[in-house]
Amino acid sequence: MSSATLRAFGQTATGRPLEALEVPDAGPLGDEQLEIAVDHCSVCHSDVHLLDGDWGDVARPLVPGHEIVGRVVRAGARAKISEGAVVGLGWQAGACGGCGACRSEREHLCTGGKVRTCTAAASPSPPTTRWGGFAERVRADARFCFELPEGLDRATAAPLLCAGLTVFSPLERLGARAGMRVGVVGVGGLGHLAVRFAAALGASVIAFDPDTSKRQLALGLGASELTDACGPLPRGVVDLLLVTTHAPLDWTAWMSVLDLEGTLCLVGVPGAPLTLSADPLLDEQKHITGSVIGSTQTMRRMLAFAAAHRIAPIVERASLASAASVNDAIARVREGRARMRIVLDRAPG
Amino acid sequence: MSSATLRAFGQTATGRPLEALEVPDAGPLGDEQLEIAVDHCSVCHSDVHLLDGDWGDVARPLVPGHEIVGRVVRAGARAKISEGAVVGLGWQAGACGGCGACRSEREHLCTGGKVRTCTAAASPSPPTTRWGGFAERVRADARFCFELPEGLDRATAAPLLCAGLTVFSPLERLGARAGMRVGVVGVGGLGHLAVRFAAALGASVIAFDPDTSKRQLALGLGASELTDACGPLPRGVVDLLLVTTHAPLDWTAWMSVLDLEGTLCLVGVPGAPLTLSADPLLDEQKHITGSVIGSTQTMRRMLAFAAAHRIAPIVERASLASAASVNDAIARVREGRARMRIVLDRAPG
Repeated sequence: MSSATLRAFGQTATGRPLEALEVPDAGPLGDEQLEIAVDHCSVCHSDVHLLDGDWGDVARPLVPGHEIVGRVVRAGARAKISEGAVVGLGWQAGACGGCGACRSEREHLCTGGKVRTCTAAASPSPPTTRWGGFAERVRADARFCFELPEGLDRATAAPLLCAGLTVFSPLERLGARAGMRVGVVGVGGLGHLAVRFAAALGASVIAFDPDTSKRQLALGLGASELTDACGPLPRGVVDLLLVTTHAPLDWTAWMSVLDLEGTLCLVGVPGAPLTLSADPLLDEQKHITGSVIGSTQTMRRMLAFAAAHRIAPIVERASLASAASVNDAIARVREGRARMRIVLDRAPG
Repeated sequence: MSSATLRAFGQTATGRPLEALEVPDAGPLGDEQLEIAVDHCSVCHSDVHLLDGDWGDVARPLVPGHEIVGRVVRAGARAKISEGAVVGLGWQAGACGGCGACRSEREHLCTGGKVRTCTAAASPSPPTTRWGGFAERVRADARFCFELPEGLDRATAAPLLCAGLTVFSPLERLGARAGMRVGVVGVGGLGHLAVRFAAALGASVIAFDPDTSKRQLALGLGASELTDACGPLPRGVVDLLLVTTHAPLDWTAWMSVLDLEGTLCLVGVPGAPLTLSADPLLDEQKHITGSVIGSTQTMRRMLAFAAAHRIAPIVERASLASAASVNDAIARVREGRARMRIVLDRAPG
């Protein structure tokens, strides 16, 4: 079953376009690992950050892609998922299993040796062999692979595995529910799913985006109010504000959008340190926090919730068969032109 | 009962020492108000901030003092506390009663017209007549006056009314309990009570202070570990970090003292905006928030808890009978030399 090499699209140095490569396969299959043939892989802004070197050095070639739907083609002896299963795989492909975070069902905060093994990126030293979903097959610990529940469309589900988890996790943890007002800043890959999840959880939702057409789209997804994120901001209108953009914002101004004791939660990674007045924290007892992907339990709940509420990502589809198509998708995500996510299909159909 | 003037110690302009003054009394007693003869008033760092002009302009003369224990000498017709009662009064002396915060038992976050009426400070325009506990009598809405429970020593209870509430409120709200590790930054007027409350709530407590003798004192109050706040900081050792100082800190460094998903809560008012890395918020899902005094319900619970657990502030006592004594107390608080709080007694005993 195993070949010595895999076909992949990868980047050999920061700033270069992706090119068709033959990369070594991941070696012997671990007892708890799965090998997955990639059918669909969507493009997340984190892929762009990695390719553009925004997050420091990663091993090259870099084969991106961490929103994956595929079929299990080999299963390790102790893996609890069998050959032939259709599974999803997101940002995280492994964890140490022994640290406090792993032992408390927070594997996504793993602080152990194999720190939050990424599906599609590895530290440059020591050299490792990790390829994301732009390779024909990917490798992951079975604990981080998730059988897709009935009712989820395989062809469009891929963005749930990272974008969906990233927004569902803080919405659930911070208590989005009927009677709560949730603001979503940025209606893009993450934001459009945040609007849908928050509305399905019962919250009333205000969408903030400078783009009129994206605000209109949010209305159709369940937002009840729309606000131009570049205009004057309304004050005290939400209990939870989910910031899905990575642009540095005027944090003190955005804190004013929160009602008393509200929480601003970052899920996009801002490129600069935060500076904000302490006044809203003290005098209005507001909170600022962030959230990163989610635990395996949260992933399972998110997938079940999405299936039950028929929450499918809005996607454009393109081919995962040519460097031109792959590079075009990367460029569109980099420039914020994807609506809302681009799913690349290995066998377009 | 009412005289046209009150004897008080007040400041006539920013930067000046307090001097003995005759100030107009507060006029006709409102139906829901109490007039309280001050027996004991302690000095809070907020008094120093007001006197030094750190928080903007307030009306002059400024008669400070908002940690007060005294006797009700007149009660309005609808007040629920009677003449002769021994009561405490803290930072807040009134609220609008009608805003969302007031209607949800969060009067300390009142956003209504009479925004969080302060016991001892008023906006300079329109001119108002508000005198704090350095006057012989003070005036407050009865809802913000609290009969002292059995078991609290009247002579040392005054610091509970502001410092005690300020630290108890976030400890309670943020869930200090057995199994939680609470760090207290700064062992002073607020911090020494935070150590006692956190320990009595069942948490294990680490005290951080650059002063060896203050750290030793914290040990006797229930802290199980001590750390020099100026030395290298331990990483990941607490779930909740209560920052009682007003000095600007290296916030990113202090966030590292928190374990995963921990909360840093400001209760001191830093003099400058916060700047911190977003990384601990995102990758470790940490929180930053703040807290200001507390609600009337929290005040009642705090006083009952203090009485039940025999938590008395550690105080020095001095006379509220001379300008020299009052100015000396202010200077000692300004310079961080009070151990731990100075209570001024109108009739020293």
